[in-house]
Amino acid sequence: MKKKAAYRSDRVKMVHKSVSPPGASPGLIQPSSDSLTPKLVLVSYNTDALLEMPCDNLAEAFSKIQDQPQYKHWLEIKGLGAKKMLEELCEHYSIHHMEMEDVVNAYQRPKMEEHTSHLFLVSRLFYRDVNDDLKNEQVSIFLFPNLLVSMQDSYVDQFESVRARLRSGKGLIRTANVDYLAYGLMDTAIDNYFPLLEAVSESLDVLEDNLFDQPTRSLLQQIQKFKRELIAIRRAVFAERDKINDLLRTHTDFFSEQTKVYLKDTYDHTIQVLDIVDSYKEITASLMDIYLSNVSNRMNQIMKVLAIISTVFIPLTFVVGVYGMNFDYLPELHWRYGYPIVMIGIGVLVILQFLFFWRKGWLDKS
Amino acid sequence: MKKKAAYRSDRVKMVHKSVSPPGASPGLIQPSSDSLTPKLVLVSYNTDALLEMPCDNLAEAFSKIQDQPQYKHWLEIKGLGAKKMLEELCEHYSIHHMEMEDVVNAYQRPKMEEHTSHLFLVSRLFYRDVNDDLKNEQVSIFLFPNLLVSMQDSYVDQFESVRARLRSGKGLIRTANVDYLAYGLMDTAIDNYFPLLEAVSESLDVLEDNLFDQPTRSLLQQIQKFKRELIAIRRAVFAERDKINDLLRTHTDFFSEQTKVYLKDTYDHTIQVLDIVDSYKEITASLMDIYLSNVSNRMNQIMKVLAIISTVFIPLTFVVGVYGMNFDYLPELHWRYGYPIVMIGIGVLVILQFLFFWRKGWLDKS
Amino acid sequence: MKKKAAYRSDRVKMVHKSVSPPGASPGLIQPSSDSLTPKLVLVSYNTDALLEMPCDNLAEAFSKIQDQPQYKHWLEIKGLGAKKMLEELCEHYSIHHMEMEDVVNAYQRPKMEEHTSHLFLVSRLFYRDVNDDLKNEQVSIFLFPNLLVSMQDSYVDQFESVRARLRSGKGLIRTANVDYLAYGLMDTAIDNYFPLLEAVSESLDVLEDNLFDQPTRSLLQQIQKFKRELIAIRRAVFAERDKINDLLRTHTDFFSEQTKVYLKDTYDHTIQVLDIVDSYKEITASLMDIYLSNVSNRMNQIMKVLAIISTVFIPLTFVVGVYGMNFDYLPELHWRYGYPIVMIGIGVLVILQFLFFWRKGWLDKS
Amino acid sequence: MKKKAAYRSDRVKMVHKSVSPPGASPGLIQPSSDSLTPKLVLVSYNTDALLEMPCDNLAEAFSKIQDQPQYKHWLEIKGLGAKKMLEELCEHYSIHHMEMEDVVNAYQRPKMEEHTSHLFLVSRLFYRDVNDDLKNEQVSIFLFPNLLVSMQDSYVDQFESVRARLRSGKGLIRTANVDYLAYGLMDTAIDNYFPLLEAVSESLDVLEDNLFDQPTRSLLQQIQKFKRELIAIRRAVFAERDKINDLLRTHTDFFSEQTKVYLKDTYDHTIQVLDIVDSYKEITASLMDIYLSNVSNRMNQIMKVLAIISTVFIPLTFVVGVYGMNFDYLPELHWRYGYPIVMIGIGVLVILQFLFFWRKGWLDKS
Amino acid sequence: MKKKAAYRSDRVKMVHKSVSPPGASPGLIQPSSDSLTPKLVLVSYNTDALLEMPCDNLAEAFSKIQDQPQYKHWLEIKGLGAKKMLEELCEHYSIHHMEMEDVVNAYQRPKMEEHTSHLFLVSRLFYRDVNDDLKNEQVSIFLFPNLLVSMQDSYVDQFESVRARLRSGKGLIRTANVDYLAYGLMDTAIDNYFPLLEAVSESLDVLEDNLFDQPTRSLLQQIQKFKRELIAIRRAVFAERDKINDLLRTHTDFFSEQTKVYLKDTYDHTIQVLDIVDSYKEITASLMDIYLSNVSNRMNQIMKVLAIISTVFIPLTFVVGVYGMNFDYLPELHWRYGYPIVMIGIGVLVILQFLFFWRKGWLDKS
Repeated sequence: MKKKAAYRSDRVKMVHKSVSPPGASPGLIQPSSDSLTPKLVLVSYNTDALLEMPCDNLAEAFSKIQDQPQYKHWLEIKGLGAKKMLEELCEHYSIHHMEMEDVVNAYQRPKMEEHTSHLFLVSRLFYRDVNDDLKNEQVSIFLFPNLLVSMQDSYVDQFESVRARLRSGKGLIRTANVDYLAYGLMDTAIDNYFPLLEAVSESLDVLEDNLFDQPTRSLLQQIQKFKRELIAIRRAVFAERDKINDLLRTHTDFFSEQTKVYLKDTYDHTIQVLDIVDSYKEITASLMDIYLSNVSNRMNQIMKVLAIISTVFIPLTFVVGVYGMNFDYLPELHWRYGYPIVMIGIGVLVILQFLFFWRKGWLDKS
Repeated sequence: MKKKAAYRSDRVKMVHKSVSPPGASPGLIQPSSDSLTPKLVLVSYNTDALLEMPCDNLAEAFSKIQDQPQYKHWLEIKGLGAKKMLEELCEHYSIHHMEMEDVVNAYQRPKMEEHTSHLFLVSRLFYRDVNDDLKNEQVSIFLFPNLLVSMQDSYVDQFESVRARLRSGKGLIRTANVDYLAYGLMDTAIDNYFPLLEAVSESLDVLEDNLFDQPTRSLLQQIQKFKRELIAIRRAVFAERDKINDLLRTHTDFFSEQTKVYLKDTYDHTIQVLDIVDSYKEITASLMDIYLSNVSNRMNQIMKVLAIISTVFIPLTFVVGVYGMNFDYLPELHWRYGYPIVMIGIGVLVILQFLFFWRKGWLDKS
Repeated sequence: MKKKAAYRSDRVKMVHKSVSPPGASPGLIQPSSDSLTPKLVLVSYNTDALLEMPCDNLAEAFSKIQDQPQYKHWLEIKGLGAKKMLEELCEHYSIHHMEMEDVVNAYQRPKMEEHTSHLFLVSRLFYRDVNDDLKNEQVSIFLFPNLLVSMQDSYVDQFESVRARLRSGKGLIRTANVDYLAYGLMDTAIDNYFPLLEAVSESLDVLEDNLFDQPTRSLLQQIQKFKRELIAIRRAVFAERDKINDLLRTHTDFFSEQTKVYLKDTYDHTIQVLDIVDSYKEITASLMDIYLSNVSNRMNQIMKVLAIISTVFIPLTFVVGVYGMNFDYLPELHWRYGYPIVMIGIGVLVILQFLFFWRKGWLDKS
Repeated sequence: MKKKAAYRSDRVKMVHKSVSPPGASPGLIQPSSDSLTPKLVLVSYNTDALLEMPCDNLAEAFSKIQDQPQYKHWLEIKGLGAKKMLEELCEHYSIHHMEMEDVVNAYQRPKMEEHTSHLFLVSRLFYRDVNDDLKNEQVSIFLFPNLLVSMQDSYVDQFESVRARLRSGKGLIRTANVDYLAYGLMDTAIDNYFPLLEAVSESLDVLEDNLFDQPTRSLLQQIQKFKRELIAIRRAVFAERDKINDLLRTHTDFFSEQTKVYLKDTYDHTIQVLDIVDSYKEITASLMDIYLSNVSNRMNQIMKVLAIISTVFIPLTFVVGVYGMNFDYLPELHWRYGYPIVMIGIGVLVILQFLFFWRKGWLDKS
Repeated sequence: MKKKAAYRSDRVKMVHKSVSPPGASPGLIQPSSDSLTPKLVLVSYNTDALLEMPCDNLAEAFSKIQDQPQYKHWLEIKGLGAKKMLEELCEHYSIHHMEMEDVVNAYQRPKMEEHTSHLFLVSRLFYRDVNDDLKNEQVSIFLFPNLLVSMQDSYVDQFESVRARLRSGKGLIRTANVDYLAYGLMDTAIDNYFPLLEAVSESLDVLEDNLFDQPTRSLLQQIQKFKRELIAIRRAVFAERDKINDLLRTHTDFFSEQTKVYLKDTYDHTIQVLDIVDSYKEITASLMDIYLSNVSNRMNQIMKVLAIISTVFIPLTFVVGVYGMNFDYLPELHWRYGYPIVMIGIGVLVILQFLFFWRKGWLDKS
């Protein structure tokens, strides 16, 4: 059926197939078969200038970076479907194969690792695709003294706003070092959650109203869907928080104290997101309660109608059955006013029954 | 429908629209469009005197503060709808733009930040508006050596009691430094929870009584409403506790050890509030249990009536049906006392059935 | 209604009205209007002698204490309805006004505070009043080197057993210092929980038996009552444990190491109480489960009777209805043995149906 | 009723009456009235020899111990119903009265206390008595440099296996010091849980199978019984773990590092027991879910039968009722084939209805 | 019955019978009776060469190991059913009898122990057997400076992939020391969980779809099965995480810092597994909710049909009953159009009733 398929497609996956098989040699860089062809963009900037240069291959990017030591560089790689390129990158910047395996095996928890020559940062980005399904994607960042390499396996452009800030040259982003750029990317990833959660909040409000009106199976499915999404988001943000906390407590040359002031703010945001997600999970649980209690309420309604009808008519049917008997000696049958008397008796009975229902409160609306 | 709208309006919001968009430049001071026009009141006081001076603009306030170094000052800003004023304030007192962003983006968790020239404190205030809806509002405090700036985006006056204490000159409030005033404001914010929770407690008691009498859908909605409110309160107080704890453990010149003695009391109060909120959340869960079990009980009631009626009359209808058959040779029909015998038999049957119900306990009230 | 009122009255309150209003000046000593007139008893004792002296006012007590430096003193103040006396006490023994506010604002969590001249200890005492309602009361203790002042706002006498030990002179109580007396009072407060919980345990056992027999609404109310009581007790004991732990870890002159050996035992008891309360909370949750499942079971019972009756008689009524039809050509009606054949057929049908019910297990008791 | 009584008797008690009354003098040694007459057995052993000597009184045991300094001694006291003997023991080995109170007041959490002259250890032993009820008993151990005194208030012999090991002389038990014997006793107490839990596991499996077959009230009672037992076991093992951990971390002369190697293994076992108990508690909760859902399922079954019967016969009864009417002008009654036509119509109706039920899936087994 | 037996067989056992009886001498090496005959394979390797040598007995393996000091050795023992061999092993490599007891008593939590001559590591391996039942098995590893002994009591070959890497000689595995081999084995054990959990995830998705279609008892059983499996997996991985964490924090010569870099990755994986398992447990709980709510929904469906049929036909039966009465004076019976008027009246009544149902929403699908 169409509907079910639609429902399945927006389930948030937790285990991803591209994890390397058990027992595989560690540090094996093996992009999954549906990885995209890489697109490279090098953004070179300093306080005075900004250059956005698409590159055809890594070699081109490397040479441009080396030729312009007066610039700070952001090398953005979108699409990881080129094993050779990844190995080239490892070699050129002495990135450990274990790190690149984490870039490729695309379900890593957000984390940060300090290496001799660079910091390795993993973030997760959540967004809704065109079908309104919740997707999440990994952004891996290598942070060198003067260079930031960001890698992700999709062409979706979540960092347009950061690029816009770079172009405008407002704020610190052009004057500060690349660690500030790293902060900017991570901060954008976290800020992303707020509109997402706001939408969830509104959906939950609508859901709640609908649940009070009419509990249907599709509402139940929606509750379950939101629950799964919140579980997935919580899991990611929890790790995100740990990552940022690690960054804040680490004394590293790659991340200046000035930038950490800003990062502290991002940290506050992750805690806020966790707060909100936890509240929403509680609300989802309430919705389930409401659903179940309204199902019971509807049952009550149905039973009440059934009970009223049965209670009214079953005794009456007995009464008329009595006078349908064929006894030779059934005197009432021969009375002149037997029929009207019986009918009036039935009318009185009905009135009494309704008084009973009214006292029981069965005639109330809810 | 009217009722539903009313219900929606008093839902406690968790995500607020004024949070700056993802990827926005950090430190962007952008008041939301529905922010109020600022009203400024400067309260200058020392042990001997107290001056309450409304100011038209910041410049006026600044000059008054500078002219009177022998006073301690409390600058109260209500309404944040003037971007320029906020920037002016930042510049004049070297407040970081990131802080002012937190003032404006009005959903911050309560927190405290130590800066070189001042302490930055965020509190949340809960109150019920005229429609009995639970609102919560942010009060931001900048604490300088001789000056306290409090900012909030509403004209509601929660600190009237503090101002009264200032005017009366009783207690330490006039003799102690402005940190004591800061303590006073935060303490008032926390003490605010007690009458609020007391009202919740009474409502929960009434709810419980009503639930035992008659479980209706509107009671269910009320339970859900209280649950949401308690979730929201818990979230705020939890952060409030962390904030005060941070303050107590920080060795800062802005907060004297003498004032901390008082603040320790406020800390105890936040823990008490958390305690109470947790207890109420457990009670709300119980209420939900009671609701559900009473819905089941009502169903039982209805089923019992239905079962009694059916059990009594369905067999009787069969009996009278037997003597409604048209067989040529149905001897009982021709008996002289056939009819009374059948009716007496029916009477006996009914008595036996009621004995059965009585033994089953179906005739009991509850 | 009588019953409901009775139920309400024994609810354990969590927020108490005597908490001072938000924004009130801290350290404000304002006894609530229903505080009792103070009664003072001074117990002076040493290894050799014991004097129990009721005092009319504080001055009398002060002079007696000063006149007898060779004694240890226990000043017991019952009833806090005299503001002046409280202030006098503060002044005479340099007790901070914040402490006395805690004594008067009678809902404090159990806690301990170390001051220069004394220890300030708050305990909570639970007991059942004459209506079997659970009450809890605050006992505040000021512990000076040679003097213990205990204060509570009721005339209930929970410490009679301690006084008896003092009189008998057995054990350490007369030879040790007043810290041992403080231990004795706190230990009595904790030991109080055991008979209370034992009673709860027995009530829960009776409840469980009744629930299996017949789930009624009043049982549900009792479950809820016990749940509330356990929540309240847990909250108090949790804080009590923290208090005693604080005492054990603090190096203070007011509490000797020898007495701490005994206090360690009290600490073990608080943990035992917490253990028991947690177990009982789990059992209360189970009782709720049993209640709900038994309500469902009863419904099943009712439905089974209804289903059996309907299944037996509805088909029979159809059969006799067939032969009640008035068709001119309905040959069976004219058969000589039509009537007995139909009745025998009905009998066979009923037997078959009961076989069916028996196989379905509907005829079983439970 | 017999059955209920049986059920009550095997409830695991949590509060025990022998706890001394609140306010009692601490260190009061007052055995409960149903304590048993003590039986004393002294086991003296070294690498070469083993002597098992029942003693009539403490004096006899003391003299034997003093006469044989070349032996290690295990004094086993079963039955605590002799106040004088207990005091004698306290005096002879300078045991604090508080400790002996813990021995006698038989509900102590497992714990360990270090004293100047000895270690005081409390263990709890669970076993099933002849009625298959879960009992638990306290074993108190005083560990001196060359002597171990074990005390319990029952004649049940849980330590036969340890005595057998002593007799056989295999392993370290005869060569090592008495601390190894203490380890042996505690290890036996913990190992005791495994067969107990294995039995619980098998019972839970049988319960689950029965629940899927037929949910009865007695199954519900069994679930509750296991739940209570698991709560009680968890509580004891939790404290047991803390005790052993305390022992492992304490640097004491009474417990050698060599023995601690073995004790570490016991520690692992307590964690395993906790693990298992937690898993079983989750499984018990699942069983409750299964029970409830199967009760609902049975209701569904009953309702289905009722609905099928009603849906089939109620319309038919209406049809035959139509032709039972006595209208003068009811032409069908006079048709030659009126009766067979009606009966065929009824047959067709029944077939259609069964098609409807079949499509609804009401004719399926489950 | 077949089905039930099948269900039982795939329950994950928590307590295993081979645990030595309570009170048994510690360090008793007693393989369970169904242990397998040992098969020994010695893999000797260095950067240049690799030798895989099946050995008939330990003596042969020992001599081969001693003869080739230039190699690193992996002695794989599969099947533990030879007590003598195990004791021989203990003696030859000075392994404590307590360790070998842990190897044999096959339910140990994963753990690591540091000994003077070696590290002792316990891992648990989960896999599905041919009947799709979840089995778990213990792998014990003794890690010496140049030798790794792995022991397990089954012939299942989980480490084929590691052996393949050894043979291929790719990666670090041949050049690094045996600690890297130990890492490889533990990493394989953890990576094993991912395909397992992926399968669970897919089964849960299928389950959820089926639950929305038709809630049957066998689905309920499947939910319970997965719940039990997740409980078992969580328990094992939790301990696995602690083990690896212990390894990472221990400064030991047996585990080099280089290998720890890789082990950190394994640590990340265990956390990921825990994350996933927790999410799945939440989802399993949701499935139970869905099951229960759908059972209620089905009941609602059945009740609706019953209510509609009863509500329609019971009043009609009453009406026709009225005209089946045998009163002498029942004028309608003699009307020319009495019969059609009654039938038309009945038709109108039915239409009105269906309007009522339609307004109530009872005619909707869900």
